[in-house]
Amino acid sequence: MSAADTRLPGPRSATLDFWFDFASTYSYLSAMRIDALAARHGVAVRWRPFLLGPIFAGQGWQTSPFNVYPAKGRYMVRDITRIAADRGLAFRMPDVFPAHTVAAARHALAGDAGWIAGFSRAVFEAEFARGLDISNGDVLAALARETGGDAPTLAARASSAAVKAALRTETDTARALGIFGAPSFVTPDGELFWGDDRLDHALRWCTS
Amino acid sequence: MSAADTRLPGPRSATLDFWFDFASTYSYLSAMRIDALAARHGVAVRWRPFLLGPIFAGQGWQTSPFNVYPAKGRYMVRDITRIAADRGLAFRMPDVFPAHTVAAARHALAGDAGWIAGFSRAVFEAEFARGLDISNGDVLAALARETGGDAPTLAARASSAAVKAALRTETDTARALGIFGAPSFVTPDGELFWGDDRLDHALRWCTS
Repeated sequence: MSAADTRLPGPRSATLDFWFDFASTYSYLSAMRIDALAARHGVAVRWRPFLLGPIFAGQGWQTSPFNVYPAKGRYMVRDITRIAADRGLAFRMPDVFPAHTVAAARHALAGDAGWIAGFSRAVFEAEFARGLDISNGDVLAALARETGGDAPTLAARASSAAVKAALRTETDTARALGIFGAPSFVTPDGELFWGDDRLDHALRWCTS
Repeated sequence: MSAADTRLPGPRSATLDFWFDFASTYSYLSAMRIDALAARHGVAVRWRPFLLGPIFAGQGWQTSPFNVYPAKGRYMVRDITRIAADRGLAFRMPDVFPAHTVAAARHALAGDAGWIAGFSRAVFEAEFARGLDISNGDVLAALARETGGDAPTLAARASSAAVKAALRTETDTARALGIFGAPSFVTPDGELFWGDDRLDHALRWCTS
């Protein structure tokens, strides 16, 4: 059955902005389901990678809050493990957490709008299902190729001044929207939803 | 229709521990629905007030994280407002946030097990629907009376050494269980769920 066949009633032109950081465990959960779920609501998704690091730094954290607050970190791993099991998703924590995501985010922004979702899902799976190091250029090149990208061109673009500036701008935009964590979802009328557990609410908001 | 009529299949002897702080906005959301929802799962609920203050202090916060991190605080108000609207609940932020909840928690622990749920819901409604000051002894006495309690006896017990110690012990127990925020739900086999948005998962866990 195609997505269109299961689409719920509602306006068909809405676009939901999906703000994520590749190091974010809850962003992984959303990345693996957002396109299918949004299609059923007749909502388009714009994938918007950004960097949580500068935003966390503004909150006084030099690393993930899951490292700053160990009880919260232990809980997060358990919570994601339970949810992933429910959804039939693989999940393991990467050896380095949070991963360094600048290179992955720049790669994502270096491609075109039709490629970013598949590439981003591949990055999340590499990190959280296969335990690969997504800060590694060879890993990113392989994922780019596997998702139909021209790896050398993407790598060159990813290290260009234009793409570096674009990622800084996206992160500044996220902060200006009130984003303080990931995943976050922003509707066409500017409504902010935070967390994988708010994705359904965000989609309903788009079509109500 | 009684709760029993809509009960889902599953073991009927499970008890879910509901850990909450009266200042917690998301605990309000859970308090107003947990008994009815649990009844449909055939799960009993044990209401366990504790103090987030000492636990937050251990995380380096002298007040609610919603005050420490203003973007998160603004988002929380908006998120609760949307959810309350969805559920037909009134919601307003109290003039003092977080409320001082020691007296309310001691009152709750001063009553018997059959009274605490109704009293606790009344406290949450007074605070988040009516904007009353739940640190005020007269307010607590009125809520005790309205929920069938003997207000003078409860007030006397609430200030006894035994109840003061009981609240400290409950807070220590919460910390030992890995609790770092509220609401939290703990299943009979020790599984911890955090947040109103995990209540359904916690109930399913009890009966699976």
